[in-house]
Amino acid sequence: MLKNMDELLELAKRRGKRRIAVAAAASRNILEGLKLAEDLVHPLLVGDPDTIKQYIDEIGLNAEIIGARDMRESTYWALELVRKGEADLIMKGKVPTPDFLRAVLDKEKGLRTNRVLSHLTVLGVPRYHKLLFITDAGMNIRPDLEMKTKILRNAFEILFRLGYEQPKAAVLASIEQLHPDMPETLDAAALSKMADRGVFGNALVDGPLAFDLAISRESAEIKGVKSPVAGDADILLVHDVAAGNSLAKSMIYFGGAKAGGIILGAKAPVVLLSRADSPEQKLYSIAFALASL
Amino acid sequence: MLKNMDELLELAKRRGKRRIAVAAAASRNILEGLKLAEDLVHPLLVGDPDTIKQYIDEIGLNAEIIGARDMRESTYWALELVRKGEADLIMKGKVPTPDFLRAVLDKEKGLRTNRVLSHLTVLGVPRYHKLLFITDAGMNIRPDLEMKTKILRNAFEILFRLGYEQPKAAVLASIEQLHPDMPETLDAAALSKMADRGVFGNALVDGPLAFDLAISRESAEIKGVKSPVAGDADILLVHDVAAGNSLAKSMIYFGGAKAGGIILGAKAPVVLLSRADSPEQKLYSIAFALASL
Repeated sequence: MLKNMDELLELAKRRGKRRIAVAAAASRNILEGLKLAEDLVHPLLVGDPDTIKQYIDEIGLNAEIIGARDMRESTYWALELVRKGEADLIMKGKVPTPDFLRAVLDKEKGLRTNRVLSHLTVLGVPRYHKLLFITDAGMNIRPDLEMKTKILRNAFEILFRLGYEQPKAAVLASIEQLHPDMPETLDAAALSKMADRGVFGNALVDGPLAFDLAISRESAEIKGVKSPVAGDADILLVHDVAAGNSLAKSMIYFGGAKAGGIILGAKAPVVLLSRADSPEQKLYSIAFALASL
Repeated sequence: MLKNMDELLELAKRRGKRRIAVAAAASRNILEGLKLAEDLVHPLLVGDPDTIKQYIDEIGLNAEIIGARDMRESTYWALELVRKGEADLIMKGKVPTPDFLRAVLDKEKGLRTNRVLSHLTVLGVPRYHKLLFITDAGMNIRPDLEMKTKILRNAFEILFRLGYEQPKAAVLASIEQLHPDMPETLDAAALSKMADRGVFGNALVDGPLAFDLAISRESAEIKGVKSPVAGDADILLVHDVAAGNSLAKSMIYFGGAKAGGIILGAKAPVVLLSRADSPEQKLYSIAFALASL
């Protein structure tokens, strides 16, 4: 169990310095992000060699450059580095996200597994007693029950790798009761029962839980809800990406949370940074990917 | 424009002390909530007179008691007090919420108007420069475009009454682009255009906006989104109640926000307190109802 982002960084450092392949790396913003994480990863930069060389000299980043003619070639070479075991992680550069993810999912040249791709956010919230994970706040628009099962499995797998013995997931809704007009409450019941039946291994799932019950023991006591997850959730499973995205951002902007995010379900953790990510968020995302190896 | 909850309390006090009818008032928890607001409202307590008398003596609450035999009678008498102009506000006591709302919506004996009922949350978030309103985080499960229009109209009407000259609403989504698989982004575009055409009076609407763009000018600048609402939203319109509920609660529990909530669209503001509401939340909800008169 990790208490805060410093512990996540420590864990990442203990993994030892790994190689990260960067597809279409000729972006100053991306290279600056890598500079912040230079103690954690050694970059293999795929893309236009002249531009990359110029940027890394300016920034003072130590990295290898692998020349590629265009975004497409650069993406496939970065993927190949991971497939051949020459890189441990992969990061998107300035190639558009849909094109990049399509390449990741390519059956022959990609990093496809039998799992789905899903996004996992990690948040160090000052007012919470440990790290909080939200899924899926970045990728799957409106997952059905089957997809939620796979998304939850992806998240648990990472938490096991981070050293959690028995991670706890709350399936969020606005109420604790089951309501036929609120499919998220029915999915929550199904996921809870699946966990009881051992589908997720040594992990606890409870829901439907309103947000306050998931993270506040006091709220759970006042409402008389008994649950091993209530007040102590590690993972919040949201019903759609719009809900998860606002929730994670409110923790960052209003709750002072430190945050990072990665994409799970491929053969290697995938880092996607956004221009609007703070330098801190870039560092934590790379650290999160590394720690989850 | 109100900067914080203290300004909302001040505004409520300036309305002068008003009468609040309480349906099925024989609840210690409810009466304690009213005690906190005794400077703001004079309670007309409908319900079992002996129990109410005992509680208000213990609590030291100054109020009128109107005897009623059961919850149903007590609800209808409370509604009648409002209809006859003998009370200005109405509050739910220990009658179940669905029964109470059904009575409020009763065509003959209720407080029905041609508007829909919707819930409006007010939040004083330390890290935001003014009060933030969320709708609908408590009542309408998954409103369609027509319902969203009515919900937004209800919210604007209250903000005009609170003295806002040109309230600004952000329609939340996870992205700023329109996406056919994300109906909330299409609804957002429609609502924005309706506002441009004057449907909501002197009010601004923009969306789809991700949460960070709605409340952070810096984020909007980084992403290059130009919008009179971005970074300065008064109202956040959410796509469903599960999203709104988690979002509001994360602001309360992780963002240290002071909060209150009322139901709009009836002939008088409706206060519904929950047992899990903090004393502060109870006070702010009553003050919010009073200020919105």
